[in-house]
Amino acid sequence: MTVPAGEETLASLGESAVLRRIFPRLPDAALALIGPGDDAAVLAAPDARYVVTTDTMVHGPDFRLAWSTAHDLGWKAAASNLADVAAMGAVPTALLVAVVAPEGTAVTFLEELADGLRDACTALAPGCGVAGGDLSVSDRMVIAVTAFGDLEGRAPVLRSGARPGDVVAVSGDLGLAAEGLELLFAHGVDAVGAPSAARAAELRESHPAALMAQLSPRPPLADGVAAALAGATAMLDVSDGLAIDARRIADASGVALDLDSDAVGSPRALTGGEDHALLAAFPAGVAMPGGFRAIGIVRTGEGLLVDGRPYDHRGGWDPYADWDGAAG
Amino acid sequence: MTVPAGEETLASLGESAVLRRIFPRLPDAALALIGPGDDAAVLAAPDARYVVTTDTMVHGPDFRLAWSTAHDLGWKAAASNLADVAAMGAVPTALLVAVVAPEGTAVTFLEELADGLRDACTALAPGCGVAGGDLSVSDRMVIAVTAFGDLEGRAPVLRSGARPGDVVAVSGDLGLAAEGLELLFAHGVDAVGAPSAARAAELRESHPAALMAQLSPRPPLADGVAAALAGATAMLDVSDGLAIDARRIADASGVALDLDSDAVGSPRALTGGEDHALLAAFPAGVAMPGGFRAIGIVRTGEGLLVDGRPYDHRGGWDPYADWDGAAG
Repeated sequence: MTVPAGEETLASLGESAVLRRIFPRLPDAALALIGPGDDAAVLAAPDARYVVTTDTMVHGPDFRLAWSTAHDLGWKAAASNLADVAAMGAVPTALLVAVVAPEGTAVTFLEELADGLRDACTALAPGCGVAGGDLSVSDRMVIAVTAFGDLEGRAPVLRSGARPGDVVAVSGDLGLAAEGLELLFAHGVDAVGAPSAARAAELRESHPAALMAQLSPRPPLADGVAAALAGATAMLDVSDGLAIDARRIADASGVALDLDSDAVGSPRALTGGEDHALLAAFPAGVAMPGGFRAIGIVRTGEGLLVDGRPYDHRGGWDPYADWDGAAG
Repeated sequence: MTVPAGEETLASLGESAVLRRIFPRLPDAALALIGPGDDAAVLAAPDARYVVTTDTMVHGPDFRLAWSTAHDLGWKAAASNLADVAAMGAVPTALLVAVVAPEGTAVTFLEELADGLRDACTALAPGCGVAGGDLSVSDRMVIAVTAFGDLEGRAPVLRSGARPGDVVAVSGDLGLAAEGLELLFAHGVDAVGAPSAARAAELRESHPAALMAQLSPRPPLADGVAAALAGATAMLDVSDGLAIDARRIADASGVALDLDSDAVGSPRALTGGEDHALLAAFPAGVAMPGGFRAIGIVRTGEGLLVDGRPYDHRGGWDPYADWDGAAG
């Protein structure tokens, strides 16, 4: 990231001054009793419980600065965490955001990241805001978000409740985010293979849906509550690919999930990561709520089946195995 | 960090297997209704509010692997966040822990880090446990902790409530952590100035209190609740040095804090960072609770005074200004 001479940076302005620039851009959390600025925030938990989750995005394995704008990064950091809250059947209420950035990071970059956080909250989870955070320096950018949610008196929907005979259903796109990543790896690079912002911009024009699914996903958050209200017996956020995540519900519930390949769609829909779709099991006969569509059935047994046959491919994106070590 | 050939690493074992090794070492949070293993945890908030804070430790500006053991890092990451919870007058209840580590990190290192988290919770905040987390890869280690607390029906103690006439008091050591850091920079290095584990071990023997205050601090967490019960009007965790943090209470409260240099002690007690002492204001005449000792008075006016005269030195440790760019 090259910053023009004279532009304000994290190092030139300092943490406190940067935070004073950023916080006014962030949305308030409706349930924040005490917001940013003290040692800690105080949030309301109307039903005396709260949902919490944390997920981290690291420059290199999780994003490249040539491909993602600062706004994309803020958006995706919010959206991926909000999806984990929704997957419990909860309403997202607040975020804490810890950013670790190089000293030379432009303040405008951090402002745009804040705008991405704000716009994702506004679009995906109205009422959800940023209740606090932390800003640190390092030579490698990291965005760690903690997200909170309110169960509104309902029981949380866990991974472990699927029962034989339940319908397996999904809400949201499958494989589209992986298609976006494949496009970026194949065509978002210059002649020597380095990530290229110009080539990524061309891909955003030619393949807007796939690029948006990868760089600034829109998970169907409201369908998390809709699933809970409809009696979902199990649910999770599809983050590592349908095959891996369906196996997680199967393992946690002590059942087998049998997916219909025609209903799932392309092979990429089964193996692609970062969908942030919601995968749920519903009792047979329940009308599918919101955007859910049936893609399989829960059976006695174990593991993942596709069209009735065991499916043992790994599938999904694994930064431990798939990251090429470059950052870009 | 050099790992012997054949030793299990984050890359060789993979995230899921490493998490299965780590989670059994971590303490349960007494208030966790749903702990680690699902998309999110569910925690109880007995009085329908909860306190949340996040703080990040980055390899380089915040620690050096030649000086801190993995156990130290887990301990300090927990302790520094628990201190922020205590500074609100709350009881720490749970942590979320996001670790970003190089692929070659030994699994034993991550296990020892987990042990440090556990031992800090057990020693400093019994009942507090780890409710979830995240593990990612990068070439630079980052430990991001989110901590939660329960106000037990009390109002939170903010930075903004100090009133003229209040007594300024502190609980915990001042300047000792900074002395430890000075010792490490001066003597914890080898002949060419590189951080040295052997030299740090010698310093742990010769200066145990200062090294422990820097590497595995023991903040007086119970005094946070004690201060709230005694009617503290303002409080914060002294993390950036007494001078900087006293000025924060002054600014937030619209008053001046006038410190008595004899009561404060050495100049290092005024300027040293990372004390994780609790600084509070109490109405005049209140008996000092727990380990609190009076060190000054709140006056009308603004900013920080020492012995009645304006004090304008910066003081404290600032990674933006003071970090030498090395990691060690």
